[in-house]
This record gives sequence, structure tokens and C-alpha cells, in this order.
Amino acid sequence: MTLFLVGLGLGDEQDISVRGLDTVRACDHVFLDGYTSLLRTDLTRLERLYGKKVQIADRDLVEEHAERILEPAKLGKVAFLIVGDVFGATTHHDLVLRARKNKIDCRFVYNASILTAVGVCGLQLYRFGETVSLTFWTRTWKPTSWYGKLAANRRRGLHTLFLLDIRVREPSEEGLARGRKIFEPPRYMTVANAAQQLLQLWHERERVHQQFSGDVAPDTDEWPLVYDPDTMCIGIARVGQEDELVATGALRVLASADFGPPLHSLVMPGEMHAIEEECVGLLESASNLNTKTECMEHAKEQS
Amino acid sequence: MTLFLVGLGLGDEQDISVRGLDTVRACDHVFLDGYTSLLRTDLTRLERLYGKKVQIADRDLVEEHAERILEPAKLGKVAFLIVGDVFGATTHHDLVLRARKNKIDCRFVYNASILTAVGVCGLQLYRFGETVSLTFWTRTWKPTSWYGKLAANRRRGLHTLFLLDIRVREPSEEGLARGRKIFEPPRYMTVANAAQQLLQLWHERERVHQQFSGDVAPDTDEWPLVYDPDTMCIGIARVGQEDELVATGALRVLASADFGPPLHSLVMPGEMHAIEEECVGLLESASNLNTKTECMEHAKEQS
Repeated sequence: MTLFLVGLGLGDEQDISVRGLDTVRACDHVFLDGYTSLLRTDLTRLERLYGKKVQIADRDLVEEHAERILEPAKLGKVAFLIVGDVFGATTHHDLVLRARKNKIDCRFVYNASILTAVGVCGLQLYRFGETVSLTFWTRTWKPTSWYGKLAANRRRGLHTLFLLDIRVREPSEEGLARGRKIFEPPRYMTVANAAQQLLQLWHERERVHQQFSGDVAPDTDEWPLVYDPDTMCIGIARVGQEDELVATGALRVLASADFGPPLHSLVMPGEMHAIEEECVGLLESASNLNTKTECMEHAKEQS
Repeated sequence: MTLFLVGLGLGDEQDISVRGLDTVRACDHVFLDGYTSLLRTDLTRLERLYGKKVQIADRDLVEEHAERILEPAKLGKVAFLIVGDVFGATTHHDLVLRARKNKIDCRFVYNASILTAVGVCGLQLYRFGETVSLTFWTRTWKPTSWYGKLAANRRRGLHTLFLLDIRVREPSEEGLARGRKIFEPPRYMTVANAAQQLLQLWHERERVHQQFSGDVAPDTDEWPLVYDPDTMCIGIARVGQEDELVATGALRVLASADFGPPLHSLVMPGEMHAIEEECVGLLESASNLNTKTECMEHAKEQS
């Protein structure tokens, strides 16, 4: 009959809309997307509010065994709950695609997303360029493809929102080697992690620029320097929650500032209009924050 | 004490969040932003749900007489309701700025926005470039500054969301001439209006290109041709409401398609990935829609 994709918003169980709540209460089965974002509440409170059992849908269920969601939706009403807004992740488009191919009616109950709640930092939404996702670097894999997007935004004077990596139920290397399902503890990239990654890449680019400082110019399309350690950025944590935190600082300051528990985002402003400057000027200074920066610490609190 | 900015979402009174509803019910004064977007419900239903009187705040009140909102917020709790998400419009940042300068605590209850609900068209949000606003052209004023933004998005293969003009409580020229407050009937730009504007500008640019088709090339930075009448676009109407409509067609088709009552948005896809193509391919075809296109007609229904 119907698959309802219901956005839950950014905070806890209270952020569902009245329409969303009515929808969930009328459904026969309720799944919660458990791997593309983080809800600051537990299942018990959701179940109490809905008066329904809620099944956690991990990546494996949604991407490999979607029929477990779609089969009941052929006969009745199924709610698939998504933290934030409905269409934040590719995998949800994929679910809708499969449902429609199965002639299942799809309905959407939208909700808040970091992509617009980021306006809390005082910058105008229509002056943001392409959104950039940062992933955790490992010893062997340091993706830098986001740099081109950032550079393009910077060249046009646009603001950039960095969405920071979330690793929930990632199979551990040890588990993979032994052919068993063992998961890494959840990890959430912090503002400090992100700032450190940006600084590290800046160092590398600066080195290239210095090498070529003689006759041969570096390929500036490939290696433009579009920020430096003094570039003022904005760290954002737990938007939409009681302890929401928005603070500004140079990248080098953010790299050691502690924004507390997840989720975090980072903003690099482009050219600011007068009113944007005034709004950003009233934000807290990150130099007032503590300076412990280990992402694992908060991850442990959450796991 | 506190000014709460509460997003109402995209549809009617049911789209407020549970947190938002609790907040509004606890407030001493409730204002509704009545000019940056459109709520598909009436004041009576809002007041019934909230158990409170709701005062419409027009542009004049918010921009010129903000003290009427801020003064009561110094003593008690004031809710300022905004259709969509909280930070969609510059004027709301300005309100927060004034509140903070008056040492009034500001809290935000986020909600859905067209900027992310647009994902319903099947395109990935992270592949959208800068958002573009189209305003109604008049006989004497035909702003085209959006073209540069569109061109920059197109060059990078990014999707473009066009937000379409809303004219609510605009002073009429006749009224201005007589020094009296007379308002134009509300007008909402339709998908057809937008497509027509895009086609008209394309015609002008094509004419320039043909003029210069000899030895002298046109300044392609100023006058690039980044779309044509056959460019496939997506019209979106009433997102988040029961009669939500999403349909695809070439610009020339959209220019005479009737998407029904407001609000409308237009999307011009950039390069599409396989899954995006598949999702967009399942949308309704705009050539199945009626072909009456007068924006005033729907405006009358609303006024």
C-alpha cells in the first residue's frame, strides 16, 4: 500500500512533526534508519511516543535486504524514519526507487536538515555553494576530492558547509580478516578533526607552492591555495538540541577546540555581507572552549 | 526573556514539530511571518491548534517596527513562526540580530525547507550548486543577475534550484502615487512563468551569439549559452502537501504546463548519475498536465 518516509529532524523524539507522528502511529511497521545520522535519544522513548515497536534498519538491511521493508509495504502501511530530512542520503532515493518499481505508493513527511539549520551561524543560505563531505583519513586513504569543490566555492565568494564523517556499524578490519561480523566502535568526526585535516592539506599545498616558487608556477587549477591557518571558520555542534553550540575561530584555533558530543559541522564563510558579518560577530569565540580534541572520547560516550 | 523562532514546515498546521507545538503553547505572544512564504491553512486553524491568538507580522512590522515583537520578548516568551525553516530569509537573521543586541535570548525550532525537500525530484542534494531566486519581470525591470549563478552551476555539472517569486502585500503603484497604503493582490510565480522567463533570456542570448557568429566571438563569460528550449527541467509544486506534484519536461513544455496552486519551484538538473536518472525517469511527464498558465488565476484563489 504505502511506504512513508518520515523525517525526524535534528534533535530527539520531540522533533517529529505532528503530521509525522500521526503517520507513524497509523503504520503497521516502523523502521528507523540507523546509520546515516544520529538521533540524540534512545529507542525506548521513540517507542513510547509512537506506541509502536521500532526496528533499527542498518545499512545492510536497507541496501541488501530492502524486501524486508518493501514486502510489508505492499500489504499495509510502513514508516521508514530518517534523522534530519527525508532525502539527505543516496540510499533513501534508492529505497524509493525500489518501492516505486514495486508499485508501492511513496509519501514523504519532510523535516529539518543541517543543510538549512546551518543558517544559525548567521550566514545567508542562498550564499552557500556546493556542500562538501569530509571523510576520516586513514593511514592508506586520504581522499582530497572535496578540495576542488571548496576551491570553486571560494573563487565565487560562496560559503561552504562541511558535513563531517559518521562511522556507525563499520565492519572492523580484524572482523573482515576473520570473516566475522565485528563492528568498530562508532566514530563521529569533530570540528577539530576537520580543521586538522584542512590544515594538513594546506601544509602539503604550501609545500608544492614553495617548490615551484622559481620559474615554474604550480598548476594553480590543481593546487590553488584557497585558505590558510588564519582563515576564520565556524564550528557547529548539536544543532537543534538544547546544548546547540556555534563558535568562530581561525582554523588553527578550531583544530584544538572541543565542541563536545556529536554531531559537528564546519562552515568556511566566503565573502560576507554587512549583516552576515554582524551576525557572525555575535557568535561565541572558539578560543573560550576547552582544548581536548579526541573524537574517540565522545564516540565512547555514545556507544 | 526569550524569542523563539519556530519553523512551521511546508504544508499546513500539522507540519509543526511536537517540540515547536509545545514551545508555541508555552509562549505569551505568537507572531506569524506573513510575507516570506505561504502556509496552506488559515489563521483559525493555527489558533485552534495552539490555543493562542496569532498575530500576522507583515514586512512593515518586522523590518520597521520590530520593537513590537522584541519588547514583549524582554518580559516573557514570544514565538515568531516562519513557514519552512527558520533561516530562509535575511529578514529573520536581522530580527535575531536585533534581539541579541537587546540581550534577548534566542532559541530556534527548525523545520523542513524547500532547499532539502527538493530531493523529492530524485536528485542528490549534495550535487546542487548555488540556489537561484527568480523575480517577476516588469515592463521596466528585468533582473538577470541569476544567470551568472546558473551558468557557474552548469559549468560544474551541478543541479540548480530556482526559488520563484512571491509577492504578498506589495504596495500598488497607484497607492504609492496617492500616498495611500493600497496593496496589489498576492502573486506567486508559477513553473510556467519561470520557464517563460528562462526562454526569453535564452532568445536574447541566442540573438547576441548569432550577431557575433562571424569573426568576433561574443564574450562567452558574459553571454554563455548554458541551456536551450529543449533542456529538460523539473517543475515542483506544493511540496510537503497532499497534492504535491513533481513533473519533468523540456523548458518549452514547462512554459505552458499548469502545475496548479502555489508554491512552485523549478529545478534544472546538471550532470546526472545513473541512480538520479532512474529516479527522475519515474517522475510524471509535464506534457500530461493542463496548459493554462496564468499566475494571477491561482493568486486570486488564494487572496
